[in-house]
Amino acid sequence: MTIVLGDNQYGKSETHVVRVTRRGATHDIKDLTVSVALAGDFAETHLTGNNSKVVPTDTQKNTIFAFAHEPMGEIEDFGIRLARHFVSEFASVYRARVSVEEHAWERVHDHAFVSAGSEKRLATVTCTDDGTWMVAGVAGLVILKSTGSEFHGYIKDRYTTLPETHDRIMATSVTARWRYRDAQADWAGSFAEVRRVLIETFASKHSLSLQQTLYAMGEAVLEARPELAEVRIAMPNKHHFVVDLSPFGIANENEVFYAADRPYGLIEGTITRDDAREAALAW
Amino acid sequence: MTIVLGDNQYGKSETHVVRVTRRGATHDIKDLTVSVALAGDFAETHLTGNNSKVVPTDTQKNTIFAFAHEPMGEIEDFGIRLARHFVSEFASVYRARVSVEEHAWERVHDHAFVSAGSEKRLATVTCTDDGTWMVAGVAGLVILKSTGSEFHGYIKDRYTTLPETHDRIMATSVTARWRYRDAQADWAGSFAEVRRVLIETFASKHSLSLQQTLYAMGEAVLEARPELAEVRIAMPNKHHFVVDLSPFGIANENEVFYAADRPYGLIEGTITRDDAREAALAW
Amino acid sequence: MTIVLGDNQYGKSETHVVRVTRRGATHDIKDLTVSVALAGDFAETHLTGNNSKVVPTDTQKNTIFAFAHEPMGEIEDFGIRLARHFVSEFASVYRARVSVEEHAWERVHDHAFVSAGSEKRLATVTCTDDGTWMVAGVAGLVILKSTGSEFHGYIKDRYTTLPETHDRIMATSVTARWRYRDAQADWAGSFAEVRRVLIETFASKHSLSLQQTLYAMGEAVLEARPELAEVRIAMPNKHHFVVDLSPFGIANENEVFYAADRPYGLIEGTITRDDAREAALAW
Amino acid sequence: MTIVLGDNQYGKSETHVVRVTRRGATHDIKDLTVSVALAGDFAETHLTGNNSKVVPTDTQKNTIFAFAHEPMGEIEDFGIRLARHFVSEFASVYRARVSVEEHAWERVHDHAFVSAGSEKRLATVTCTDDGTWMVAGVAGLVILKSTGSEFHGYIKDRYTTLPETHDRIMATSVTARWRYRDAQADWAGSFAEVRRVLIETFASKHSLSLQQTLYAMGEAVLEARPELAEVRIAMPNKHHFVVDLSPFGIANENEVFYAADRPYGLIEGTITRDDAREAALAW
Repeated sequence: MTIVLGDNQYGKSETHVVRVTRRGATHDIKDLTVSVALAGDFAETHLTGNNSKVVPTDTQKNTIFAFAHEPMGEIEDFGIRLARHFVSEFASVYRARVSVEEHAWERVHDHAFVSAGSEKRLATVTCTDDGTWMVAGVAGLVILKSTGSEFHGYIKDRYTTLPETHDRIMATSVTARWRYRDAQADWAGSFAEVRRVLIETFASKHSLSLQQTLYAMGEAVLEARPELAEVRIAMPNKHHFVVDLSPFGIANENEVFYAADRPYGLIEGTITRDDAREAALAW
Repeated sequence: MTIVLGDNQYGKSETHVVRVTRRGATHDIKDLTVSVALAGDFAETHLTGNNSKVVPTDTQKNTIFAFAHEPMGEIEDFGIRLARHFVSEFASVYRARVSVEEHAWERVHDHAFVSAGSEKRLATVTCTDDGTWMVAGVAGLVILKSTGSEFHGYIKDRYTTLPETHDRIMATSVTARWRYRDAQADWAGSFAEVRRVLIETFASKHSLSLQQTLYAMGEAVLEARPELAEVRIAMPNKHHFVVDLSPFGIANENEVFYAADRPYGLIEGTITRDDAREAALAW
Repeated sequence: MTIVLGDNQYGKSETHVVRVTRRGATHDIKDLTVSVALAGDFAETHLTGNNSKVVPTDTQKNTIFAFAHEPMGEIEDFGIRLARHFVSEFASVYRARVSVEEHAWERVHDHAFVSAGSEKRLATVTCTDDGTWMVAGVAGLVILKSTGSEFHGYIKDRYTTLPETHDRIMATSVTARWRYRDAQADWAGSFAEVRRVLIETFASKHSLSLQQTLYAMGEAVLEARPELAEVRIAMPNKHHFVVDLSPFGIANENEVFYAADRPYGLIEGTITRDDAREAALAW
Repeated sequence: MTIVLGDNQYGKSETHVVRVTRRGATHDIKDLTVSVALAGDFAETHLTGNNSKVVPTDTQKNTIFAFAHEPMGEIEDFGIRLARHFVSEFASVYRARVSVEEHAWERVHDHAFVSAGSEKRLATVTCTDDGTWMVAGVAGLVILKSTGSEFHGYIKDRYTTLPETHDRIMATSVTARWRYRDAQADWAGSFAEVRRVLIETFASKHSLSLQQTLYAMGEAVLEARPELAEVRIAMPNKHHFVVDLSPFGIANENEVFYAADRPYGLIEGTITRDDAREAALAW
């Protein structure tokens, strides 16, 4: 009886790549999560730790980013190009399997998009013998703009390494909650308009900071909806980092991004009227 | 120095209620998750365990279901009715806060709906020196029909308690993956049509079992798309149980449902052509 | 070319069953999530909706609960008994696959247990030019006692259906956060003792309501730890419902429970000292 | 009526930092998730996008990593140092709130640790009229070693940027499933021993690749347990990247790590006996 190595494979899972393609002012985006699994002549690394036939999973990730810089086509096309690369480039790779998940975005503007995602409409009512307070809202409103966002002029101290940027992706998942002046309104109409104004302002307001965008969104809502006393907004900065493709001889002009999960910036703000009734028990 | 009770509240969180309203063949649905929090004269239950002023959270849940039977209006209206009920009905409740989350559904048929949810487009490519296999798919396609589904005539043994039904909600989150005959096709066009046929068949096929629906969906896809060799579908049965409102003197004629998370039925099937090329390494 | 049904299976997934076994005052618990998948002669339900060979997934769930009433043995033993039952009992079932996940609990008392789960230690510091406030805590401390908990004497109204109980499982996931009088203390020692007192009080305090248990836990912490000004506790009531086994001729004396995910009761309370310094910016 | 900015704050959330402290061969680890929220004189960035008073959240993240290089103390100590830094260093910051979550690890070796995490024991039984197959396992066994792991000698191509390393953190969440020769064994004893051998081998085997570790774990299990025919292991490489602290004048000698969520390497392998009975329907 001998102990032997059976089926095995390895690869990089869940590389989250976002590709922006520019056609003038109109942008297209592809938002993909890509996983690679390679099988082949990998007994040695298992048995002795000799890695001379191993393509590191880090290299697989880099390859995904580099290939994402070329015209992508459909996810099937992109997957075929990647899989064939691994099989043809490396003698030790007998089988490459590439799995791609595409997350859809709906265009709401030339270069702004909404994700169908996990959006929910919210209402919180508080009642006592003395009154009723209504707070409505939306959560999980995922929006992204592929240009029209800058960030510079901030404090630099000895821990600062962030380069200033005059063009970046801005993406967030908006949670906005608004307090009504009274416990009576056209709820459905009000909700629809607030949601529309939030998206429209995010898309069209040129941004110098996420805070500025947040305030503009709240201000536009209050300007449009006299029935509201106050808006509270929380927006995580869903960072999209420009991938450095220069080691591969590729200039990445805001085309290929790595979408990070954590950590993330979190911006929270309240926009209100100076004559608004006290919030009392509303929140 | 004395130890004292400070702010406190309690309530039932995340009651998931689905309300179907019939206007002839056309149905409307509201899909809500409701949480209640009550504050008031509750020192005694904390200090001595005397519950004489406590409204059980189970009763709060029942109240949500019973109130859901009346015309709902917007979530704000529904929240106000519930919150006012708790404050006015129970002397010990000084403040009631009701939070409602609404999950949107998009109508695709008189009484069938798609959730914007977490849908993803999938592609898995497998390459060797000898060939390329393409499997594409969709995951998280959440669909619901509010009628047109029966389940009866099954085996009864000593552990069977399920009543037969001739009208139920059928809801599922489809994962469908289809294998192409060749590694070349109109990927985008094929995806769009398969997705459309899956939804259309789910919506329009009268169902005697989830298995029958699954098979019909796969069969329709293969009939419509000659470029495909095989379809594999997994459909969890996202159970919607009719809430028993009879203790409250209410007849619930498939109007108020409790949407359960777990356990769930899981139906998996393959639909193929009898002359299809072997799947080989495709999966 | 004909379209045909290929491999298929179906079953009930993720039935969450908790079994309590009593040996006098000492109890043992088994916490299992069980999934069943059956394959066999199921073409008819796919092709015509004839369910005469189908064992409903609801019956599978009932069978899991009924079998859980017998001595369980290890999860392997339990799985074998279930799988053999389905194959031997039903001619249409050719293959039964039963998958069981066991979640471990660590005994902390005769009939109280802690789940290794997702526990985290917390600290939140708030600083201004004027001061420093320290709130420390624990989240995800999952504890369960299999007896020593009652609930009765509550308000009954027209929406009440909950039966009173003099013996139930009480299970929760404690989030407790405590505010220090000063921004200086033996942090590690304090944390360890607070955690110990929380568990000890939960386990040993006979409970007439979850509120009473919550208050007793906070009170015991403040009595034990003079460095603390205030404790805030949130405890979801992770409901464990006694499964009705009477349709199967089995008396279920608090032995087999269904562990529900949603909805859940949520109890929140603050326990403080009457001479505590104001919380100011601490929270 | 004027629209005005109300309460607001911003900061970096969920920076996941792991700190290794060496006392000879014995290492200690601290695994923290840190969130920062700053409030202060930030009206300008909201109103005009002037960021001259803004400390970027990226800088906050860098500060967390830099401060993690100093002796940490308890999470309360670490939080106080960070919060005071932000308030005292920046005139625009009036209030800093730092929240820290600590995830516990249990030492199993000089420099190897197990996370109490989400571990589950598994069993999957498959029955037909002809036989019974048993696969048992463990999932979510999270283990980490803070030294004794290298990775070098791999293929370099034009997409390779990964530097070779002779000392790294190796962390993974093991899913191991083993097939029994027969459907009868000392299940509990077998499980306990397999789990012990998996951990012991991970901890003590010097590693040149995760594949080598995986194979050694499976081989040790089969050597120790004659009742097993085969072991299948999947191990995600939970990457811990050495943070580059050189911009802050700090040499980071494998002390401060950033724990990434995605993407991750995924290594899967089967270890079997050359005379093992066929797996047949077991999996």
